[in-house]
Amino acid sequence: MLPPSGFRDFLPEEALARQQLVRGIAETYGAFGFRPIALSAMENLSTLLGKGGGTDNEKLIFQVLKRGESLKAAIENGGKELADLGLRFDLTLPLARFYAKNQSTLPRPFKVFQMGPVWRADRPQKGRYREFWQCDVDVLGSSEIGAELEVLSAILAVFQRFEFHGLELHLNDRRLLAALGRSLGATEAQWAEALICLDKLDKVGADGVIGELQEKNLLSGNGLDRMREILVKTEHAREDDWQSIDGESVNSIREIRQILTAAFPQTNVRFNPSLVRGQDYYTGTIFEIRHNEIAGSLAGGGRYNRLLEIFGGQATPAFGGSIGFERLVLLLSEKGLIGKGTDEVKVFFPLFAPELRADVTELAMELRARGIGADVFPDAAKLKQQFKYADERGFRFCAILGGDEQKSGVVKLKDMKAGTETTVPRSSFFSTLETLCKT
Amino acid sequence: MLPPSGFRDFLPEEALARQQLVRGIAETYGAFGFRPIALSAMENLSTLLGKGGGTDNEKLIFQVLKRGESLKAAIENGGKELADLGLRFDLTLPLARFYAKNQSTLPRPFKVFQMGPVWRADRPQKGRYREFWQCDVDVLGSSEIGAELEVLSAILAVFQRFEFHGLELHLNDRRLLAALGRSLGATEAQWAEALICLDKLDKVGADGVIGELQEKNLLSGNGLDRMREILVKTEHAREDDWQSIDGESVNSIREIRQILTAAFPQTNVRFNPSLVRGQDYYTGTIFEIRHNEIAGSLAGGGRYNRLLEIFGGQATPAFGGSIGFERLVLLLSEKGLIGKGTDEVKVFFPLFAPELRADVTELAMELRARGIGADVFPDAAKLKQQFKYADERGFRFCAILGGDEQKSGVVKLKDMKAGTETTVPRSSFFSTLETLCKT
Repeated sequence: MLPPSGFRDFLPEEALARQQLVRGIAETYGAFGFRPIALSAMENLSTLLGKGGGTDNEKLIFQVLKRGESLKAAIENGGKELADLGLRFDLTLPLARFYAKNQSTLPRPFKVFQMGPVWRADRPQKGRYREFWQCDVDVLGSSEIGAELEVLSAILAVFQRFEFHGLELHLNDRRLLAALGRSLGATEAQWAEALICLDKLDKVGADGVIGELQEKNLLSGNGLDRMREILVKTEHAREDDWQSIDGESVNSIREIRQILTAAFPQTNVRFNPSLVRGQDYYTGTIFEIRHNEIAGSLAGGGRYNRLLEIFGGQATPAFGGSIGFERLVLLLSEKGLIGKGTDEVKVFFPLFAPELRADVTELAMELRARGIGADVFPDAAKLKQQFKYADERGFRFCAILGGDEQKSGVVKLKDMKAGTETTVPRSSFFSTLETLCKT
Repeated sequence: MLPPSGFRDFLPEEALARQQLVRGIAETYGAFGFRPIALSAMENLSTLLGKGGGTDNEKLIFQVLKRGESLKAAIENGGKELADLGLRFDLTLPLARFYAKNQSTLPRPFKVFQMGPVWRADRPQKGRYREFWQCDVDVLGSSEIGAELEVLSAILAVFQRFEFHGLELHLNDRRLLAALGRSLGATEAQWAEALICLDKLDKVGADGVIGELQEKNLLSGNGLDRMREILVKTEHAREDDWQSIDGESVNSIREIRQILTAAFPQTNVRFNPSLVRGQDYYTGTIFEIRHNEIAGSLAGGGRYNRLLEIFGGQATPAFGGSIGFERLVLLLSEKGLIGKGTDEVKVFFPLFAPELRADVTELAMELRARGIGADVFPDAAKLKQQFKYADERGFRFCAILGGDEQKSGVVKLKDMKAGTETTVPRSSFFSTLETLCKT
């Protein structure tokens, strides 16, 4: 039977690749001073639907039925308020809830990462699931671009660790976008709508954006002309040309770009004045990581200096980013950059007869104690079946201890890759394998 | 705000300890040839309530409200069948569902482990949560004691890895218990109830068990006398004394005990004829890992040769065990065996002025590239605040690059543990730290 529609099971190869990525991200973020937290998968429904959630999210939430008497009461009440809990649909809202509660006991700044599943009651589509992992990294309580630099370099270091090259880091600033709107003569309401059009630049092109701005009457004649000019040049935007619009944000973009270019010379770090990012809670720097051969973005995020107050915490400037975990694990697997050779077992022991079990177990246990993974076939089954298993699993070495070998005090060692076979005395069995497994 | 009642948030120290245990278990199981799978958190409610679930489990399940039109229809139908999905309450039922679907493409035997959260709509109590992790390891498709040996030695190797000593491994066999019931003259129905009494031996003692058996009239006079005799001797049970009751299972217990005693001489591996284990799906060997200073069990499991057929899969003999993850992470943390020193950062860079940011970032990035974790304070804040942060985080070294150091081409290195301070030229900064971080 399959899992429910939109949910997935991961087979060993996939689960190993995911495990490897999780570990790589945790180690990389750890080396930058970020520490993990793990938050409840469920929230009170009122939390999810409250200020931070908003009614837009209501349809996304998997709601959990009340239990016992409360359920009975809700049904008798005509089926109102049937649910009291909901599954988290992102990691940001739980973080805000957590931080409001714990901030007085946490170091400031709080450098933190989260990895884990979130659930969305979306209609399942190809590549879109109802259960998927998110991977967020944040600096809470820092107002300077040091937060941007730590988060962005940690994220770029993850891609570097897995030898994923050819990246573009696009930088922009919400303050600059706001100043641009004012300079083009748009009202706040017009500009909010205009940014939604601008966000589609990659899909519809400059003409498409201008057309929509015109059609919806969001910019007047002169503003529209200047916008067209800007959009045509966005591929090769220079900070200097934007200095007069909002000097502060332009300086911050420039400094981030310069420092990250020095640290990651292989990454194309660029100012992209047309970058918008959907979320309405961003207040400053925003970014996206893209790859010229891959549609969409691989990571993204921004500064959200006012979000953490929603659950009554103190005002806390913050910057965070998120790697598209599901996307990345697929891309890295396709490119053969993860999942290969993560199986920790190198040596296979077939079992020729039940009376050899104690001896074979002893050899395997000693190997494992020396840090060499070993798999023992559990049944004294037909050898054909045992070697079929070894073949499927792709073990490198096969260690044979049959009755004859046992009597002679030797083990026969087959190198499945080289196709060679040697007989070694038991006294040198472990040291031989230690040497072989290093090659 | 707190998470919902019965749910938990894990702070960095706790999350790091959990991460360390997860990694240690995965690496240990990996070295035995077990591979991970990761299954859907949600199941169709019909799957959870079906044969494998049973009505006893219904109250345990967090049910997920239907959405859209189906919800409306269910409410109009008087509040019947309001839910279509449910959260898994263990990892065994999803495994059986998964295996029925995938067994033809999986190697046989299939050596597998799972770690992840499960959810139970229990009333929250001290130490009892509604979201908690389970950690299962299984050999599917093996009928001989090789499966028992691989699972049990992998589990014992986890405890060994974390230097958790003083363990007792209790072994028994459901076939032996069944044969005992027959030999004592109990009917099957009487014996099923008698086993429930026997399971309480640790809590109520031999007299308590005998009293209850008598009161409920589950054993007749002669059978009762023999049972009393057995219970008194259970602390020092010898397999030989049980040979006549069921030779096959006694031989298998003896062989498992002997091989594991040789492999884990520090573990007290013993035959415990009063061990029952609650689950009714066990068919052969059952086990529990205990510690004489800790109430209850640390791990447990057994052979379940008929369970995997419930979702229409082929008959598949299987043996599996489960480590009490939540319990173990608490015990290891209390004993200081995990969570200490897992923070990967050794070097802290305060930021004396914004214009030093580029230089400080460069030093930190180079350290991280050499495998030494580094944390940069993101804001040029008051130094008191920066050192308070360093103190809370407990970094070993503080690397100071102020304006003077920058001009002189040096870095000041403070060893926070030793209380010493040295000034090193930038050319030897990295090699100095590489040497220091090894000590």
